Amino acid sequence: MSFLSPQEQLERIKFGVAEFINDEDMLKKLKKGKPLNIKLGADPTRPDIHIGHTVVLNKLKTFQDLGHKIHFLIGDFTAMIGDPSGKNTTRPMLSREEIEENGRTYAKQIFKILDPEKTEIVYNSSWIGKMTPAEFIRMTAQYTVAQMLERDDFTKRYKSGTPIGIHEFIYPLTQGYDSVFLKSDVELGGTDQKFNLLVGRAMQSAYGLEGQCVLTMPILEGIDGVHKMSKSLDNYISVVDTPKDMFGKTMRISDDLMYRWYELLTDINSHGLSQLRTDVAEKRKHPRDVKVALAKFLIKRFHSEAAAQAAEDEFNRIFVEKGLPDEVPDFAVEAEAQVGLVALMAKAGLVASNGEGTRLIQGGGVQIDGEKISDPRLKLDLKSGASFVLRAGKKKFVKIVVR
Amino acid sequence: MSFLSPQEQLERIKFGVAEFINDEDMLKKLKKGKPLNIKLGADPTRPDIHIGHTVVLNKLKTFQDLGHKIHFLIGDFTAMIGDPSGKNTTRPMLSREEIEENGRTYAKQIFKILDPEKTEIVYNSSWIGKMTPAEFIRMTAQYTVAQMLERDDFTKRYKSGTPIGIHEFIYPLTQGYDSVFLKSDVELGGTDQKFNLLVGRAMQSAYGLEGQCVLTMPILEGIDGVHKMSKSLDNYISVVDTPKDMFGKTMRISDDLMYRWYELLTDINSHGLSQLRTDVAEKRKHPRDVKVALAKFLIKRFHSEAAAQAAEDEFNRIFVEKGLPDEVPDFAVEAEAQVGLVALMAKAGLVASNGEGTRLIQGGGVQIDGEKISDPRLKLDLKSGASFVLRAGKKKFVKIVVR
Repeated sequence: MSFLSPQEQLERIKFGVAEFINDEDMLKKLKKGKPLNIKLGADPTRPDIHIGHTVVLNKLKTFQDLGHKIHFLIGDFTAMIGDPSGKNTTRPMLSREEIEENGRTYAKQIFKILDPEKTEIVYNSSWIGKMTPAEFIRMTAQYTVAQMLERDDFTKRYKSGTPIGIHEFIYPLTQGYDSVFLKSDVELGGTDQKFNLLVGRAMQSAYGLEGQCVLTMPILEGIDGVHKMSKSLDNYISVVDTPKDMFGKTMRISDDLMYRWYELLTDINSHGLSQLRTDVAEKRKHPRDVKVALAKFLIKRFHSEAAAQAAEDEFNRIFVEKGLPDEVPDFAVEAEAQVGLVALMAKAGLVASNGEGTRLIQGGGVQIDGEKISDPRLKLDLKSGASFVLRAGKKKFVKIVVR
Repeated sequence: MSFLSPQEQLERIKFGVAEFINDEDMLKKLKKGKPLNIKLGADPTRPDIHIGHTVVLNKLKTFQDLGHKIHFLIGDFTAMIGDPSGKNTTRPMLSREEIEENGRTYAKQIFKILDPEKTEIVYNSSWIGKMTPAEFIRMTAQYTVAQMLERDDFTKRYKSGTPIGIHEFIYPLTQGYDSVFLKSDVELGGTDQKFNLLVGRAMQSAYGLEGQCVLTMPILEGIDGVHKMSKSLDNYISVVDTPKDMFGKTMRISDDLMYRWYELLTDINSHGLSQLRTDVAEKRKHPRDVKVALAKFLIKRFHSEAAAQAAEDEFNRIFVEKGLPDEVPDFAVEAEAQVGLVALMAKAGLVASNGEGTRLIQGGGVQIDGEKISDPRLKLDLKSGASFVLRAGKKKFVKIVVR
């Protein structure tokens, strides 16, 4: 156990949270002086997590550092059912083997942040899947239709006449029952999970247990700085991205977003964050260097210190030593094989014609990621997710980003 | 199998129903020329049925006479759970023994109408109770929240803010799943069951089966001719009432209700019913005699032909031969032991004072059910459900009905 007092622990727990319910209950739990059960649920259909998902893992690590026990719950019960109405083909049913494989993938990813010794990975099918119909009915009796319809998405769908299957009312209850089974003291989630986490708190009370505290973390904005980080919006950094991609993507974020990422993704504290803002505002630090440090922190966490250093060296070689500007405009293209370099340059507006492009290459004025290109007939394979900086002459730069 | 054509069977099936869904599907089923599965569900918490419940049993008998197979389903699954929210103490949990005892009571009662050889008594706990959580979820995925909220009582409760437990949404689904399991071709019920019966039809389709036909029978009015027959309103005839009570209660109903009871409780057909109405209207038959015949039909069904004749003879002895009027006003009293006859007469308004009552008894002017009373100090034990005719002098009659 930690040597921090309950009040000191509470302060560390609450730093950076979106919402915490509530101080009084938490202090009561902490005052028992025993390791608490901390729960985080994960969807096993998408084990390949991005750094947006690591915001809550960071907070779990805080609990772990304070001496508490983590239940990393893989919600495989629903995944083993798939879409029971048979109407939604995008929700596949997973086999036991796929779920276990996904579980191993999760473990590999989360243990880059969490200590495996203090983390128990649990699968809810091992208790939900064994409930009797009578136990199931008892579970569903602990919540009302009106309470469930208060969940934002249910309210909207009900009002707009979009069907809600009755099983969709049951899933939050099984999630809540997980907290009953695990005797969770705190459950973490994104702000979009608040309703479900409160169902868990209510379910525990209905089963005669002390209700869990509910901690929500802000949703991380993606690279675009506008939308929630998400795979479907392609504005994410995966924890398995290459060091080069992590570095490149981090360097592309805005200065505002940079502070947000520091707050939610690193181990900075409140004081450190204010200091950073002041240093940049008073030009003691250049935003580019602050982003470099952020990129290196992420690469170190998900790869290694050596990889972080190598990525910085590579960046310096391409951008700094070759005199690239800090800001290179993006130019998005569709993935395509065997695209002519000259045609791509014309398309991206770097040259006015194919003839100009050919002459520029022949004159040695074209570079890809700092490497001079000499063949005007060069063909490129533009693979989805790839990006590189294309330079034409001394002052024209474009970052080609392949969708 | 019956020798009747599908069209002729359909006509017999539809006689007297409140609603039938629908002709086309039913003819298709009948044309297969095989015995169909006919389902009726019963609540095992109240096995002591009254004649209002026998309206659907009469219709089941029609199906049986046509050669079809009856599943008399005892809905013990919910009864074994009781009230899972723990909030409703009026819904007790029944033990396996109590349910089986209630099942035997049902059997004893329904086999006064149905042929045991063509009737299978089934308990839904034997399949619902064995479902896995995954099967349970699949079941709940076949219906939407909006569809369920269309049920009248749910609509009203939701709008008025009266809580609806989520398990209450599951019960109609389990009832519907019963039809899936039993492969029911027709399900019967009162008009108040229409929604639940249609859920069964929809559930069968969702499970890839042919949907059942839905047959609702009118709700029988009780002795008062106004309210639904119900134990809580004390306007019922139980199938285990004594012949004397059956006779007495039937004689008390109005002429309008008499025709209704003929339609729903006897084997009369459409033509016979019209004839009866005409005979009474044209004074070829006295309504009292028509009620006597109805009372005898019921006693014969639930007791014996001899009991029916004995009840008529008793009635004649008390009412007809002793010159009682056709209509004797009721006077309701609470059950009580050792009530003085004189005091009761005064209370019922037959005499103006206790003194008058005493003198009348001494003079031989007081009768109970046609028997002269000579002891003015007679005490009566008024037991709940009992009734008797009290006569004071030549023209004053009251029927004492003990609540």
